[in-house]
Amino acid sequence: MDALRTAISVWGAGERLGWPPTAEEAKRIAAFAPSALAAFARLRQGLEPVDPQPGLGIAAAFLQQLHDKEPDPATARALDAYLMVGAEHGLNASTFAARVIIATRSDIASAICGAVGAMKGPLHGGAPAEVIGQLGEIGSIDRAEDWARGKLSRKELIMGFGHRVYRTYDPRAAALRKVAEAMPTKPAWLELAIGAEAQILKVFEEMKPGRAMKTNVEFYAAAVLQGVGLVPDLFPATFALARIAGWSAHAIEQAGVDKLIRPDAKYIGHAERHLP
Amino acid sequence: MDALRTAISVWGAGERLGWPPTAEEAKRIAAFAPSALAAFARLRQGLEPVDPQPGLGIAAAFLQQLHDKEPDPATARALDAYLMVGAEHGLNASTFAARVIIATRSDIASAICGAVGAMKGPLHGGAPAEVIGQLGEIGSIDRAEDWARGKLSRKELIMGFGHRVYRTYDPRAAALRKVAEAMPTKPAWLELAIGAEAQILKVFEEMKPGRAMKTNVEFYAAAVLQGVGLVPDLFPATFALARIAGWSAHAIEQAGVDKLIRPDAKYIGHAERHLP
Repeated sequence: MDALRTAISVWGAGERLGWPPTAEEAKRIAAFAPSALAAFARLRQGLEPVDPQPGLGIAAAFLQQLHDKEPDPATARALDAYLMVGAEHGLNASTFAARVIIATRSDIASAICGAVGAMKGPLHGGAPAEVIGQLGEIGSIDRAEDWARGKLSRKELIMGFGHRVYRTYDPRAAALRKVAEAMPTKPAWLELAIGAEAQILKVFEEMKPGRAMKTNVEFYAAAVLQGVGLVPDLFPATFALARIAGWSAHAIEQAGVDKLIRPDAKYIGHAERHLP
Repeated sequence: MDALRTAISVWGAGERLGWPPTAEEAKRIAAFAPSALAAFARLRQGLEPVDPQPGLGIAAAFLQQLHDKEPDPATARALDAYLMVGAEHGLNASTFAARVIIATRSDIASAICGAVGAMKGPLHGGAPAEVIGQLGEIGSIDRAEDWARGKLSRKELIMGFGHRVYRTYDPRAAALRKVAEAMPTKPAWLELAIGAEAQILKVFEEMKPGRAMKTNVEFYAAAVLQGVGLVPDLFPATFALARIAGWSAHAIEQAGVDKLIRPDAKYIGHAERHLP
């Protein structure tokens, strides 16, 4: 019961979040979330959490609290670039969840919490970690073409390619590729990723000519996140840290509309039934 | 840090929720949630949580864990009726939030957590508690008519009346009124509520003739919840306990569709801008 007791004493002492949501509340959540994630990552390894070092930006402070060591400026800059690229991206599933929640006049923490739950889904925020698994399967550039052919002929998804809306090379992927290539400690597989990407794009063009499957943001996100020293199962939560800014902006905008989001449904089940 | 440490050890020991969501997972959450809410309610009062007594149903066990005393069968039955009436109600805002979240292939706990956040909003789950505040303002049946006239002429909302979809007397309100009237310990204000309801409906008919503002489920929900011994700020969370069944059914149904819910947005802001 200690966990609950402490949580309740924090809850009791804390200010309540209000209506409408404010940018000030959003900033406090965005500033607190990296500390929470770093503490979680350390505690599950049996390590003590580390206090944030004053004066660092969000990216640098997150890495410092994660690794108990101030990151070099280039590494912090790489994560900062990732956080900026991921900060906002229109009306995706998690952002829509945040809007549905805040539209009931709930609070911004509830909206962000719901959005985090949506981002947890592999169809939304889970792909960068899977990109690394794929590269492990591929192993070397000369095997990438066969691997991609095999995946597509078995009708399996290739993570890091294709987008529900985009039909072109995702500009965020191009930006993150540059960031990854400039990082002081690149993941060992970055060259493999770049080489495999070209092969995979070629196979897509050949086997799915009308589909315009291009590299998406997740392909190089994996390289940046691993390069700054994150383990793959922290990737979705780090994506969530980035997106808090966008979710908050959407929540504040939605609050200005102040109207429930509640689509109509068409009932297609049984008509009236009489139970015995 | 104790709270987080304990939470993580629980998380580490627990089974992971899977994809697709299952009825078994839903049952475990529905069975656990009343214990969590009762523990929360006791801890914030400085009381020790109470273990559930084996053999009780969800409603009886919730009251037993809340009050450290097995409820009389009629009281448990009244809360059980409330939980059944509240279990499911189509595609409302919280249910839609749950569907948006599970549609990313997230898990059922994340979907329910997002739904709870939506239900927290006063436009969705917050009204029953406000009904009691209103009755306090009204004070006696002979003042109800003037009070309602005043509210409507100042264009203020009256909680417990009107529905986004229904234009008739909410059948759930009728059911809960019967339950409330049959309870062994009725709230002192139940007679006031019944008398005031008639006056308020009369004023609506007179001042909003085209609007069909009728009593909704929240008006008598307040009576049942107070009658079983809940304090008003636990009403929304108790409504959430009831709705876990419905949210789960929707999440499981949505998982069968297995398709992101991600509406298109029309951007109406600035066109391309060049920053200095």
